[in-house]
Amino acid sequence: MIRIGILGYGNLGKGVESAIRQNPDMELAAVFTRRNPENIKVRTEGTKVLGAEELERMQDAIDVLILCGGSATDLPVQTPRYAAMYNVVDSFDTHAKIPEHFAAVDSAAKGAGKVGVISCGWDPGMFSLNRLYANCVLPQGHDYTFWGKGVSQGHSDAVRRIEGVKDCRQYTIPVPEALDAVRSGSNPELSTRQKHTRECFVVAEEGADLQRIEEEIKTMPNYFADYDTTVHFITEEEMKRDHSGLPHGGCVIRTGNTGWEQENSHVIEYSLKLDSNPEFTGSVIAAYARAAYRMNQEGMSGAKTVFDIAPAYLSAESGDYLRAHLL
Amino acid sequence: MIRIGILGYGNLGKGVESAIRQNPDMELAAVFTRRNPENIKVRTEGTKVLGAEELERMQDAIDVLILCGGSATDLPVQTPRYAAMYNVVDSFDTHAKIPEHFAAVDSAAKGAGKVGVISCGWDPGMFSLNRLYANCVLPQGHDYTFWGKGVSQGHSDAVRRIEGVKDCRQYTIPVPEALDAVRSGSNPELSTRQKHTRECFVVAEEGADLQRIEEEIKTMPNYFADYDTTVHFITEEEMKRDHSGLPHGGCVIRTGNTGWEQENSHVIEYSLKLDSNPEFTGSVIAAYARAAYRMNQEGMSGAKTVFDIAPAYLSAESGDYLRAHLL
Repeated sequence: MIRIGILGYGNLGKGVESAIRQNPDMELAAVFTRRNPENIKVRTEGTKVLGAEELERMQDAIDVLILCGGSATDLPVQTPRYAAMYNVVDSFDTHAKIPEHFAAVDSAAKGAGKVGVISCGWDPGMFSLNRLYANCVLPQGHDYTFWGKGVSQGHSDAVRRIEGVKDCRQYTIPVPEALDAVRSGSNPELSTRQKHTRECFVVAEEGADLQRIEEEIKTMPNYFADYDTTVHFITEEEMKRDHSGLPHGGCVIRTGNTGWEQENSHVIEYSLKLDSNPEFTGSVIAAYARAAYRMNQEGMSGAKTVFDIAPAYLSAESGDYLRAHLL
Repeated sequence: MIRIGILGYGNLGKGVESAIRQNPDMELAAVFTRRNPENIKVRTEGTKVLGAEELERMQDAIDVLILCGGSATDLPVQTPRYAAMYNVVDSFDTHAKIPEHFAAVDSAAKGAGKVGVISCGWDPGMFSLNRLYANCVLPQGHDYTFWGKGVSQGHSDAVRRIEGVKDCRQYTIPVPEALDAVRSGSNPELSTRQKHTRECFVVAEEGADLQRIEEEIKTMPNYFADYDTTVHFITEEEMKRDHSGLPHGGCVIRTGNTGWEQENSHVIEYSLKLDSNPEFTGSVIAAYARAAYRMNQEGMSGAKTVFDIAPAYLSAESGDYLRAHLL
């Protein structure tokens, strides 16, 4: 049994917990929190909830620690820190800061003889893998990534900070015509606006100026100004009834040519339709926790991304089984 | 420069040759043939064509030898034989015999300190990878593989062996309703007949009994009897004009559930639309030739499949570059 620890019991931590339940070679050894452990009730029977400070002395009870904090402030500190004590997996997704995060985790993990898998999930994660494989197989081509239809938490939060907004759910939606053009192999150059639209469902406070809220959303720099955005005002009941899930998804497409004169074209597409973004991310992380454990058992150490991990490490099955059944 | 040798200059060998041209860190060192080398003209300027027997003494000039023979009789002999002298890559695709092929290549390659990558292409190959990743990420789910629309060479050959048939091109076509049902996440159980149809374009000899030919095709065991098959008789000119390409493709879909009560469903789909089956296969093989070379440079040896090879080995770029640009 691979003994897993989870640090942080939000949506992602709960997703990881569910995933562990589906993997018979894993058990949830403990959940760690920076809140008061007494206020947290986990669903896995018999699993302890402990304060994060207990991690200083749990090395004998945990094979892989999964870090379920946020990329902005939690993971840059937590992942290097705990990679010096445990095999770890995180879902660090601030693309621009991945190089420095990798370097910090690499140094800590190598020093401790542990494996630290960073940036694991679906983007970065499964989408990254597909970008890499497709680029290697079709060196001459074009890459496209579309997200959605799905809930963007960052954009929902940004709208919630507007005065007069009680709640918001923001959906990112690929433009169907853009998708069709890419799939046709015509290699279109697409602007931000041409690739995605944004749709906001907003619960406003009573008496709020709806026109001002809509205007503030649509002109918000970075988040909405470069997109065609639709705003719907709804009631709290409608929000709860119609928008309580966290669906997401998208696709990675590479089109490219082969042949002596590049006369033949090809389309590689990887797509995800996810009912629950955090549960799917948690499932990817669970598979990579197995890989981290197995690679460390074989003596490897240091920071790894999905690019550095041979696919067979993700599976509980033997090489013989995989070759016979999945190859 | 990675110096590549090709054994066998048919459609696949030519596809590999084109792929090498797209990879600036590779060069085609020589083409080897069991035919008379004087009768073969390769497109890469300055590349020698040599008899296969020359492979006994070319170890200093070739880093990776790509075996482009057939799975029925060529590769079971060639791959173990040459894995004892070179890093090799093949596209062995007789699924039932992969375990024994792997064992034979593993033993030869380990003895020689070389890497032998077997069963490389898109199925087995990229499709296998996607089956494995999706199974690890969604342990509770269902797998589906659809092929086509595309030309099946084996089925085309089978029809050509019927008396009175001069030429045939057989297309395998996924049933759209089956694809829709799978993508909906309803986990349908699908029979062979429900998943694919087959379409044959046949050039008959003058005076041949067309009704008998059609009957023989449709009732041919293993190849056609379990499918709904359509037969069209066409002229040689039409064959040349409309059916000279070798397109193929298909998709691998896994649907599965997550959540404490498995309440959320997910669809992972990987699809390929290929103008040229042998050129795409050749492109996959070229990327894995790079991996074979690099893994061997790091001291690894033995038989490998796509499951055993970390994705980063396929790329000519550094880990830093990949993390910054593709993760």
